[in-house]
Amino acid sequence: MENEQYTVPGFKASATIAGLKKGNALDMGLIVSETEAAAGGVFTTNKVRAAPVILCERHLEKGRARAIIVNAGNANACTGARGLDDALTTADLAAEALGINSGEVLVASTGVIGQPLNMEKVEKAVPVLAGNLSSKAIPRTARAMMTTDSFPKMSRFDGQAGGRPYRIVGIAKGAGMIMPEMATTLCFLLTDIQIEPEDLKKALLSSTNATFNRITVDGDTSTNDTVLILANGLTGNTSLSEQEMGLFSRGLRQVMGDLARMIVLDGEGATKLIRVEIKNAASASDALRAARTVANSSLVKTAIYGQDPNWGRIMAALGRSGINMIEERVDIWIDQVRIVSRGLGRGPAAEKEAAAVMCKKEFTLSIDLHEGVYHDSILTCDLTHEYVSINADYRT
Amino acid sequence: MENEQYTVPGFKASATIAGLKKGNALDMGLIVSETEAAAGGVFTTNKVRAAPVILCERHLEKGRARAIIVNAGNANACTGARGLDDALTTADLAAEALGINSGEVLVASTGVIGQPLNMEKVEKAVPVLAGNLSSKAIPRTARAMMTTDSFPKMSRFDGQAGGRPYRIVGIAKGAGMIMPEMATTLCFLLTDIQIEPEDLKKALLSSTNATFNRITVDGDTSTNDTVLILANGLTGNTSLSEQEMGLFSRGLRQVMGDLARMIVLDGEGATKLIRVEIKNAASASDALRAARTVANSSLVKTAIYGQDPNWGRIMAALGRSGINMIEERVDIWIDQVRIVSRGLGRGPAAEKEAAAVMCKKEFTLSIDLHEGVYHDSILTCDLTHEYVSINADYRT
Repeated sequence: MENEQYTVPGFKASATIAGLKKGNALDMGLIVSETEAAAGGVFTTNKVRAAPVILCERHLEKGRARAIIVNAGNANACTGARGLDDALTTADLAAEALGINSGEVLVASTGVIGQPLNMEKVEKAVPVLAGNLSSKAIPRTARAMMTTDSFPKMSRFDGQAGGRPYRIVGIAKGAGMIMPEMATTLCFLLTDIQIEPEDLKKALLSSTNATFNRITVDGDTSTNDTVLILANGLTGNTSLSEQEMGLFSRGLRQVMGDLARMIVLDGEGATKLIRVEIKNAASASDALRAARTVANSSLVKTAIYGQDPNWGRIMAALGRSGINMIEERVDIWIDQVRIVSRGLGRGPAAEKEAAAVMCKKEFTLSIDLHEGVYHDSILTCDLTHEYVSINADYRT
Repeated sequence: MENEQYTVPGFKASATIAGLKKGNALDMGLIVSETEAAAGGVFTTNKVRAAPVILCERHLEKGRARAIIVNAGNANACTGARGLDDALTTADLAAEALGINSGEVLVASTGVIGQPLNMEKVEKAVPVLAGNLSSKAIPRTARAMMTTDSFPKMSRFDGQAGGRPYRIVGIAKGAGMIMPEMATTLCFLLTDIQIEPEDLKKALLSSTNATFNRITVDGDTSTNDTVLILANGLTGNTSLSEQEMGLFSRGLRQVMGDLARMIVLDGEGATKLIRVEIKNAASASDALRAARTVANSSLVKTAIYGQDPNWGRIMAALGRSGINMIEERVDIWIDQVRIVSRGLGRGPAAEKEAAAVMCKKEFTLSIDLHEGVYHDSILTCDLTHEYVSINADYRT
């Protein structure tokens, strides 16, 4: 897992087995910036917010941070005052081991909701994490934060600013309880570019909106969704021109888009990745709402699993979504195969062709409403027997 | 299947194998009132409306009808002008065979969306239906309209008005694509009470709201949802007193409540029936929204299948539902076992006790928000491997 590809100048990481996850697996990770970094975060819109989310918001007020400590196996959510104490203690322990201020440490947790964190195990693990930092260990941290994930999610972008090369590396986790409204499960982004915290935050928000806010696995928004970014400025570039800021934003979007796609690809039990694309909706909100409703419909998702171009379920989902639509205007495609033309099925030959496309691991389900000029799309996956198995047995 | 229990004076029914369903099964039914009956209907709120829904609304304008003809195997939805023609022709054929007006015939269809009805088969079946009418055949009609249902759904209520006994018999079908907003799949109600069409409609609407609008299987609202009621007046009662009207409404609610419960019990692949009860919400809409969000959460439904009192998923669903809530106020019970007290878990002993309750086929999941005075509840079922199997293979 360790390799040169996912290093960023000035950042070190480590991971260890704290014993918070079942089995003998990496379950705690640490990321440290050698110098103070510009920092930003985006968090869940769920009204039930985990303790580390509350703590991160507090520690990000000044737009600067030095470290991220993360655990899997326990979400430290719905844990009340004790949960917030535990998150704070975790930050204190990391700060002490690293010789920095506790307010410079960001904390993230993922796993089972409603159980107190085993602080004895955390206390033992923190010095191990601090003692094993390596510039090559970012992939190990990505592995340590996995829960029902089947692979660690990493992406990298290389850019230039003021004639100097910089890098963005992102790692993420997530496979279930995924329909972010402002963020997703956990995603950490590291870069050596020099950038103002306000510019960093602006780029992070717009990129989150275009990537992590456009995916769904099961329509459930987590209590712990967290995206964090640290920019340590080691590149030493001069202040960013508009063009350079544009490149950085595109790079960030590329890395986050990669990671978001990997999360859906690794959706619990998923066998297929589908882009649900809405064209020519009457409003931007209609476009998004139509895409979300189709992408979350259990009947559409099981039909995709069955490789059945059952477009009646797509029409029914559109019809109940609450958008402006007229049945007789709707066109539907599976990749290049048009299966519905002006609200009517194009017959068995077209469906047979579409069924063949649906055997692929990835395809686009495209819906033209012919109502207006607004477009949007959502990445989703199919609903399978394996999804049920994973989630019926999660805690047992 | 034929028995005396489900007869109503003045009503006859029949069923036949038209060949619209796969296999050799009953798939068309006819219900006829010997005399003109007061009639009412409630239909899907889906913007994509099946042809028979459009026709029924038209034929119900005068509040009177004589017959209901129903088919399974094909929903006659998303079939355009041809679909409406076919629904009209079906009514014409039935009217001709029965010697009544076409405008007195109500039409209902259920099954696959987007395929034209095979009118040759319908044409052959209608005279068979008209020639085999029997007062004892209502259960056969209930069987003929089944799709993925595993049993026919019937209920009866006996009342008195003006010293004369009357009866309400209801039949319904439905197992998937179930989250009615104004009705559900198909439900036919027959009574021999004498009642004004306006009173009938009022009772039907309020009863639909309390029963069929409070169930969900998969969160998908059908294009064909139809509830029809015929009251032939054979009881010959004098006009209803307020008390008698109250009894009739309660009777209707009892029959429709029974049928709605059976639909969830027969939910595709379901092994359990759960009442999700919200107490003390800040508003009526919050109570309903909270109940719906929890009742439709894939994560909650799979946890119920796994008999796991994973209340973190319930809290997460409440948190994303958009209602007014404060985590620290929430109490959660599984039947009589409290598993969450003021937002915090009550520990392994309580969860073990709750897990034992969850082994039952039916239980109540009760959530007290402590925000206001509004209550509501939704009947739902679990999400199982069998649901995925049924819906991945539906058309193949």
